[in-house]
Amino acid sequence: MGLDLNIHIHHPDQAILSRLRAKVDGKTKPLGALGKLETLALKVGVIQQTSQPQLTRPVILVFAGDHGIVAEGVSPFPQEVTYQMVLNFLGGGAAINVFARQNGIALRVVDAGVKDTFPAQDGLTDAKVGPGTVSFLRGPAMTQAQCAQAILRGRELAAAEVDAGSNVLGFGEMGIGNTTSAAALMSVLCDLQPVDCVGRGTGLDDAGVQRKQRVIEEALAFHGRHPADPLRTLVTFGGFEIAMMTGAMLGAAQKGALLLIDGFIATTALLVAARMQPAILEYCVFSHRSGEAGHARLLAELHAQPLLDLGMRLGEGTGAAMAYPIVQAAVNFLNEMASFESAGVSGRND
Amino acid sequence: MGLDLNIHIHHPDQAILSRLRAKVDGKTKPLGALGKLETLALKVGVIQQTSQPQLTRPVILVFAGDHGIVAEGVSPFPQEVTYQMVLNFLGGGAAINVFARQNGIALRVVDAGVKDTFPAQDGLTDAKVGPGTVSFLRGPAMTQAQCAQAILRGRELAAAEVDAGSNVLGFGEMGIGNTTSAAALMSVLCDLQPVDCVGRGTGLDDAGVQRKQRVIEEALAFHGRHPADPLRTLVTFGGFEIAMMTGAMLGAAQKGALLLIDGFIATTALLVAARMQPAILEYCVFSHRSGEAGHARLLAELHAQPLLDLGMRLGEGTGAAMAYPIVQAAVNFLNEMASFESAGVSGRND
Repeated sequence: MGLDLNIHIHHPDQAILSRLRAKVDGKTKPLGALGKLETLALKVGVIQQTSQPQLTRPVILVFAGDHGIVAEGVSPFPQEVTYQMVLNFLGGGAAINVFARQNGIALRVVDAGVKDTFPAQDGLTDAKVGPGTVSFLRGPAMTQAQCAQAILRGRELAAAEVDAGSNVLGFGEMGIGNTTSAAALMSVLCDLQPVDCVGRGTGLDDAGVQRKQRVIEEALAFHGRHPADPLRTLVTFGGFEIAMMTGAMLGAAQKGALLLIDGFIATTALLVAARMQPAILEYCVFSHRSGEAGHARLLAELHAQPLLDLGMRLGEGTGAAMAYPIVQAAVNFLNEMASFESAGVSGRND
Repeated sequence: MGLDLNIHIHHPDQAILSRLRAKVDGKTKPLGALGKLETLALKVGVIQQTSQPQLTRPVILVFAGDHGIVAEGVSPFPQEVTYQMVLNFLGGGAAINVFARQNGIALRVVDAGVKDTFPAQDGLTDAKVGPGTVSFLRGPAMTQAQCAQAILRGRELAAAEVDAGSNVLGFGEMGIGNTTSAAALMSVLCDLQPVDCVGRGTGLDDAGVQRKQRVIEEALAFHGRHPADPLRTLVTFGGFEIAMMTGAMLGAAQKGALLLIDGFIATTALLVAARMQPAILEYCVFSHRSGEAGHARLLAELHAQPLLDLGMRLGEGTGAAMAYPIVQAAVNFLNEMASFESAGVSGRND
C-alpha cells in the first residue's frame, strides 16, 4: 500500500554491550545467576545507551475501539461492553487500574474508535477515528485514510508521553471482538491457518470458537492474503485501537523508549509494526504469555521470550503492568548491587 | 527420631471458598481471565479466612550457615564467601537487598551457623547453632540436639515476626555448599537418585557436578536412606540454615501466615517440614522455578506451581522478593476491582 508514514526506527548501537556485560558479571552473585533479569538489564542498557539506565514516568496507554465483526457472533459479550469498560477504566475499577496503581504506572485511556460517544472527561483522550470498524467479512474493516489517521495519532500520543518524560511505555486495549481481528491479522502476516490463531477470547465455547474460525476463513477467502503488505492487511482486518497501538509502538520506539508489550492483541499490533520496521523489536520487552490460544505461537514467530506466564488473558495492558516490577528489578540490580570488589567478597577458586 | 517438637499445623477451613469464588467471578473480567492470580487470591483468602485479605508487614528471613561438606570440593567458591555475603546483606549490596527494598519487604539476616563470628550489629540476629556443620561424608552433619535447637529457634524467630504484625513471610538462605546438602535431603526424602537432584550450584563445571554427585552417593551409601524419618535425614545431611528455615516455616504456618517459598534450598527446607506436617503446604506460595537443576523435579514432587520462571538461581530469598508483587496483585484485585454490578457492565449474552 502506498502510504508513506515517514516512520524510521534505528537499531540501537550494540557497542555498549561489553561494558554492560562486565558490569553485570562483576555483581556479587554467581555468573548468570539472575537469569532473564540479566538479559533484561543488558537490553535496557543498550536501548538507553548507558550502563546506568533509569526508568522514568512509566505509563500504559489503553486504546479502545469497537469492531463491526461482532455482528457475526464472534464474542459472548455484547458490543456495549467496550464502552462500559472504558467508563470502568475511568472510574478506576478495572484490573488494569488496580495493577497500574500498585506498581506506580500512570494510565491513559484513549478512545480510538468506540461506537458510542463519551462525554468529555478527565483521563480520556478523544482520538476517535470512527464509531467502530465495519465488518471485514465482505469488505475492509476501515479505509486507508482511517488507518493512516489511527497510526499517526497513535504515534503522536506516544511521542507526547516521551516528550513529557516517559521512557517506558506499555500498551493495552479494550474492544469486544478484537481477538477476531487480531487472529485474522496474525493468520495473514504469519502465514498460518486460522485454527492456529483463534482462541476463546472472552470465553467462547467450542461451537463459538468454530464459528469465529469460519468467519475468519470466509473473510480470508474473500480478501485474499497479502502478507508482504502489512498496512493493507491492517486496513482489511484491523481495528482502530489496534492500528493506533501499532502507531503508538512505532512512535515510542522512534523516540528510543522501552516498550512493554502486553498480550495477544498488543502483540498483533506489534507484529504489524515489526513488519514495517523490524528494528522495533529491539525496543520491546514481552510482558507475558497470554492464556489466549494464539499468543504462544505468535510469540514464537517473533522469537519472543515473555517474562511472565500466569495464565492471564484479559488484555487492558494488565500483563504489561504486572511485568513492570521485573523490569524495575533488572534496572535496580544493575545500579544498586555491590560488586565483588566493592563488597570485598572472594571470587571463584578457579 | 524421637524428638517431639510439639508443632502442629491445622488445615485451613475451606468453607469460605465458595464465597471467595463468587467474589472473584463477579469482577469485571471474563471468567478465569486473571489465571493464577485468581487461584492465589483464593489461597490467601482461605489462609486468612476472609474475603478481604490484607498483606501486612511483609518480611524475608535470610538464614546463613556453613557446611562441612565443602571440604570435599563441592563448590567453586571458597567457604568464607558465606561470611562475606552476610556482611554484604548487612551493607545493603546484595540482590536480595535490592529486590526487598524495591518491593517494600523488610529483611532480617540470621546467623544460623556461619563458621566465623560476626561482631554484634544492627540487622543481624545471632542464632548461631555452631561454627558450620561437619562433613556428612562419614558422619551426621549435626547432632540431634543441634537440629532441635535450629528448628525451635527458627520457629521462635518466625513467630516473633508474626506477633509483630507480619502475615506474609519469605525465606531465603546463604551458605556455600548448601546445594549439596539440599540435594542429599531431596534424594532421600523423594527417593530419587542423586543425579536427579544435583545441579551446578554456584557454577560447577561438568567434572564438578560429577564430583558432587559422587560425594552424595558415597554419603548415602554410608548412612543409608531413612525417608520416613525426616528429622533423622535433616540431622544427617542438613545445614544449620536449612534446619532453621524448616523451623521458621513451621512456626509461620502454625501462626497462620502466608509463606513465600524461594528456590531450591528453601523448597528442600519446606520438604522436610511438609514430611513432618503436611498441612504446611496449604500456607505456601511457590515463588519461582529455580535454574538449579533439581528444583523443577522437587516442585513436581510437591505438586507445586511456581509463579515465576525467570531462570534465576541465586537463593537469598530473591525469588520470594520478586514474586511478592504478584501476591499483592492477587490481593489487590480481590479488594479493589469493581464487579459487573457495581460498574454497570453487561454480562455475557448467554
